[in-house]
Amino acid sequence: MDPCKAAVVGASGYSGEELVRLLIRHAGVELVALTSRQFAGQTVGKVFPRFAGTRYAGLAFIESDISRILESGAQFVFLALPHGVATEYARPLIAAGLRVIDLSADFRIKDVQVYHDFYGEVHHAPELAALSVYGLPEIYRAKIQSAQLVASPGCYPTSVILPLVPLLQRRLIKPQSIVVCSMSGVSGAGRNAKVDYLFAECSESLRAYGVPKHRHLAEIEQELSTAAGEKVTIDFAPHLVPVSRGIHTTIFCAPAEGVEAWHLDHAYAESYGREPFIRLLGTAGLPDTKNVVQTNFVDIAWRHDPRTGRFVLLSAEDNLTKGAAGQAVQSLNIMSGQPETTGLL
Amino acid sequence: MDPCKAAVVGASGYSGEELVRLLIRHAGVELVALTSRQFAGQTVGKVFPRFAGTRYAGLAFIESDISRILESGAQFVFLALPHGVATEYARPLIAAGLRVIDLSADFRIKDVQVYHDFYGEVHHAPELAALSVYGLPEIYRAKIQSAQLVASPGCYPTSVILPLVPLLQRRLIKPQSIVVCSMSGVSGAGRNAKVDYLFAECSESLRAYGVPKHRHLAEIEQELSTAAGEKVTIDFAPHLVPVSRGIHTTIFCAPAEGVEAWHLDHAYAESYGREPFIRLLGTAGLPDTKNVVQTNFVDIAWRHDPRTGRFVLLSAEDNLTKGAAGQAVQSLNIMSGQPETTGLL
Amino acid sequence: MDPCKAAVVGASGYSGEELVRLLIRHAGVELVALTSRQFAGQTVGKVFPRFAGTRYAGLAFIESDISRILESGAQFVFLALPHGVATEYARPLIAAGLRVIDLSADFRIKDVQVYHDFYGEVHHAPELAALSVYGLPEIYRAKIQSAQLVASPGCYPTSVILPLVPLLQRRLIKPQSIVVCSMSGVSGAGRNAKVDYLFAECSESLRAYGVPKHRHLAEIEQELSTAAGEKVTIDFAPHLVPVSRGIHTTIFCAPAEGVEAWHLDHAYAESYGREPFIRLLGTAGLPDTKNVVQTNFVDIAWRHDPRTGRFVLLSAEDNLTKGAAGQAVQSLNIMSGQPETTGLL
Amino acid sequence: MDPCKAAVVGASGYSGEELVRLLIRHAGVELVALTSRQFAGQTVGKVFPRFAGTRYAGLAFIESDISRILESGAQFVFLALPHGVATEYARPLIAAGLRVIDLSADFRIKDVQVYHDFYGEVHHAPELAALSVYGLPEIYRAKIQSAQLVASPGCYPTSVILPLVPLLQRRLIKPQSIVVCSMSGVSGAGRNAKVDYLFAECSESLRAYGVPKHRHLAEIEQELSTAAGEKVTIDFAPHLVPVSRGIHTTIFCAPAEGVEAWHLDHAYAESYGREPFIRLLGTAGLPDTKNVVQTNFVDIAWRHDPRTGRFVLLSAEDNLTKGAAGQAVQSLNIMSGQPETTGLL
Repeated sequence: MDPCKAAVVGASGYSGEELVRLLIRHAGVELVALTSRQFAGQTVGKVFPRFAGTRYAGLAFIESDISRILESGAQFVFLALPHGVATEYARPLIAAGLRVIDLSADFRIKDVQVYHDFYGEVHHAPELAALSVYGLPEIYRAKIQSAQLVASPGCYPTSVILPLVPLLQRRLIKPQSIVVCSMSGVSGAGRNAKVDYLFAECSESLRAYGVPKHRHLAEIEQELSTAAGEKVTIDFAPHLVPVSRGIHTTIFCAPAEGVEAWHLDHAYAESYGREPFIRLLGTAGLPDTKNVVQTNFVDIAWRHDPRTGRFVLLSAEDNLTKGAAGQAVQSLNIMSGQPETTGLL
Repeated sequence: MDPCKAAVVGASGYSGEELVRLLIRHAGVELVALTSRQFAGQTVGKVFPRFAGTRYAGLAFIESDISRILESGAQFVFLALPHGVATEYARPLIAAGLRVIDLSADFRIKDVQVYHDFYGEVHHAPELAALSVYGLPEIYRAKIQSAQLVASPGCYPTSVILPLVPLLQRRLIKPQSIVVCSMSGVSGAGRNAKVDYLFAECSESLRAYGVPKHRHLAEIEQELSTAAGEKVTIDFAPHLVPVSRGIHTTIFCAPAEGVEAWHLDHAYAESYGREPFIRLLGTAGLPDTKNVVQTNFVDIAWRHDPRTGRFVLLSAEDNLTKGAAGQAVQSLNIMSGQPETTGLL
Repeated sequence: MDPCKAAVVGASGYSGEELVRLLIRHAGVELVALTSRQFAGQTVGKVFPRFAGTRYAGLAFIESDISRILESGAQFVFLALPHGVATEYARPLIAAGLRVIDLSADFRIKDVQVYHDFYGEVHHAPELAALSVYGLPEIYRAKIQSAQLVASPGCYPTSVILPLVPLLQRRLIKPQSIVVCSMSGVSGAGRNAKVDYLFAECSESLRAYGVPKHRHLAEIEQELSTAAGEKVTIDFAPHLVPVSRGIHTTIFCAPAEGVEAWHLDHAYAESYGREPFIRLLGTAGLPDTKNVVQTNFVDIAWRHDPRTGRFVLLSAEDNLTKGAAGQAVQSLNIMSGQPETTGLL
Repeated sequence: MDPCKAAVVGASGYSGEELVRLLIRHAGVELVALTSRQFAGQTVGKVFPRFAGTRYAGLAFIESDISRILESGAQFVFLALPHGVATEYARPLIAAGLRVIDLSADFRIKDVQVYHDFYGEVHHAPELAALSVYGLPEIYRAKIQSAQLVASPGCYPTSVILPLVPLLQRRLIKPQSIVVCSMSGVSGAGRNAKVDYLFAECSESLRAYGVPKHRHLAEIEQELSTAAGEKVTIDFAPHLVPVSRGIHTTIFCAPAEGVEAWHLDHAYAESYGREPFIRLLGTAGLPDTKNVVQTNFVDIAWRHDPRTGRFVLLSAEDNLTKGAAGQAVQSLNIMSGQPETTGLL
């Protein structure tokens, strides 16, 4: 099978850079274009010195221009753009028959009212949000296969949704009991020049932010509600901690009537036992971001606390890989009919 | 007033070193002895090069020997020893009329059965545990004043108990709804040569540990139960994160019937409005460990989540200062009749 | 003695914040004004949450306005401003009889031609540069005492000049053999929102910069030349490393004819044996920035390499304390006739 | 071509783990055995949770036993053992016809007197040291091809030798003028439980060590002398800095008579212009370890300082990849006749 042709729009941020890192080692994809207003005309090896000497070192960034992207022959386009600008690219690219994987939040929320509530603005393209498939392969693999537009999940949502969906689908926990505590590395804030994210500000600093209404709750609750078959509202406290990459999530929830600890073992084994990128650590291991950084794995563990009766679920992932670029490549693998792990193991 | 005389037993660990750091700047204390098996005979300036050139640089460590401590003329003795060995020092020192501030967990737990349950061994000295005062000045100030033996609180417990007690005392929250998520710096693991705490293992690593039954739950629940007037059992998930110092705690809990957001503002202002080492950040600010590191402050903030109805409480402290040595010095200030902030601001 | 009155102009950067940290604990100084365009009207406790609950928490920043500074009653003014703007403050303040301690490079270089060569612009106020005293107390203590304008040394220069001056003054080394390698923490780059200094860029990054003609060479060579009695030109390679604070400097140089290892021991003991802020580690110890961070000490060690014949000199300091704010306070102590260590030990 | 079969002896340290990481992605090697006394019987996925879910996750460690290694069918054996124990494996494995790549210092030093001088003990196997090829492909590619025993270079030596050899070979610099300053990440100290390498000790710490006679000087000077055709003695100051991985080296040296800046450009282009793992940054770029971490690249830049006349050479590498495991795999690729970059790009 010939490699499929892909382009990356907005390749200068951390997610874009991670896409390039992954595609360099991907035997089934030919990267035919990268766009960046800032770096147009410069080569990959120049903009990202880390990639000098590798396969795409000499590839020059082009302007973020629809016609240029179409000329590149790309069949798949990754959009790695800031919030709010994906529509202007997704519309014409889809109209031209290309398949789009968007890494922003722009098409993830199906309910435009929820979007407005969390993002404080009218949805730019409700018809694209309706059309899009939420790009979590472990839940929507079949739909991703034929999707024209994939809305690749956010970093926190991936770490929260994956541990909870098997339990909610089987009604093993009380949906309204869910409380989530996450920690994220600083790359999650993007390559943005803000004083808050300077080394001298973040080192030796631990802090919560966005409490109690972080935007990612919109997609988290959308997916949890779908799994539960009822509206789910949760508490979510994200924390900024001094690592570059990685998200660790700890979830507390109460069992439904009659549910015992072994039900979780069974549910996870059944839902994820064959998933290539979910590692079930069970009731003995505990996730550590250092084991998932620069990989596409999510590690999941769980505990029953006999003293309080609650369950504690724990997950770890790389916010830029499984939480962004890796998951997007996983979707591309599915969409293009390649083995799902190609370039990701 | 003449400075009081103090000794530090087991001064070679991180808490002991922090005690020395604080006492160097303390005008109301004369440090008359430091003991350490490992470093006996060496000077402070040699063992801790950071303190060379300061007031106690030339003071030599002595053997951890009762008679030597008594000879030093110390009126107050800080015990900064590993778990399980405080009794052999506390008994004879108290018998000799000295006043002891113990930084270990050995005398914190009043119920020997609870001690056995969490520490897996018979209590070494139940009579000392019964005698001791839990050294949290914001709660037990009066008792500390006249205490012969202060059991200085643990690092996590300080960060959990302080935000919850005013709410439990006033029955503003449902005790059984409490869920706690904490992050701690690596100095919390002590100056112990273990592979797990190497720089190359901890850097870029985020992980939970001790879930769901960390030892600190024993004292946390003891104090929460006292405040609530009923037995309180909670969930607690500590996490190890790559900072040297600092603890950040996030607490979720449900309001009691009829309680509204402003009740918390009122409760905190009433309980802590005049506390010199508690800074109330209210419903706007958020704690950050970088603002409390190397200080004796605890910063506390709170939020009401109208979507779920829960409260979110957040606190930050330095695990070695307010969470250990600083709090112990605060107790000494109270015991010796000095202004409580002496040497700590 | 009444405390002297001091103001800090441009208190919002890292050096300004460090000045505030030091002055909070300084019994001989009353801080009467802080200025900041950005934060005028806000209190110290609000702008620097770390200082809430301390002595100056309620002090409000004022506009950086000469008349406001004069009204404050300040006798001493610290200028903690970006490069190039000190003149507009120093001139009128000095004219009004105030004594000024400038933390920028603006008045350090005596030779306006050298200034032009390294800073690429005409000197703003050669008459002030001529008037100023280079604020290195270990070298210029007597002149600082009566100085109207102190040009407080740069962070790198302090770490380079102090180890070399005793050797150059005694002609123990060949001036043209000097090669210097320094590492600095990221706070050295200031509280500036630049992508280069983001946590995710600096963590796990080691890199040289400013090679081979860093601006600090101007003042380094000025002072080394004065000590040597001849023009000294050196190589200097600064490196950015992932710590928040701290500078470590390693210097290689060749002995002059007939000089032996013990000559260094003697020279350092003679020059610095009684200096309160220089700790001589000799030929056994090695400096570590963790021992000097948040202190005003410089640690100095030296070695003779019998294989090559060269000397290796090593120093460590906190770039914000001895390398900036601490040294400035040390000068103020001298200027105001207080014990030199007041507030700094 | 069938993949060649390889074993890793002593796979539990950082270099061993890095070998496993690289071999997982290497299409031309089949990993047939890993040995470890500590972990015998456990699987790769258990010992290194990072590798769970990958190709060799189920492979069980075996005892470090010659007969077991021979039974595995390995044609190539990597020895990733602590200093001093390689001989007991290398001798019988070579006798049995296997080809050995040793990552320790045991066979790098040809002159047993030099070995004794730097390592303080009699050489264990001078005949193997004599037989071995120093495994720096950019210098000894042809010899590596047919080597029975490769002594893979140390981490610091790789970063020092590569920038200097082209200049020494062409007599462009004065050999006795060389002064080297290196910084290394903490993984360079190995996975050893020592207080010195705890996170809380290394974070916010910058320090030199091993000055002036670090063991790596033995192999550095051996190779520099060979290149220069005369005995070369240099100064070398290694520094420990808070990164996990990475070495940055800065070298100062004086040009030989008549040498100009452009001679260096020419020499590097000629020697390394076609090297797949050396990236020449020239006189504009500067190496940064973040660009080489987890790659097999060495980045090299150089400058002429017209003020002093000296050259400044700079290099960066990953101490565990190009400085250890990656370079060893590069040698294996050469020895086994595969493209040299297989599995390393």
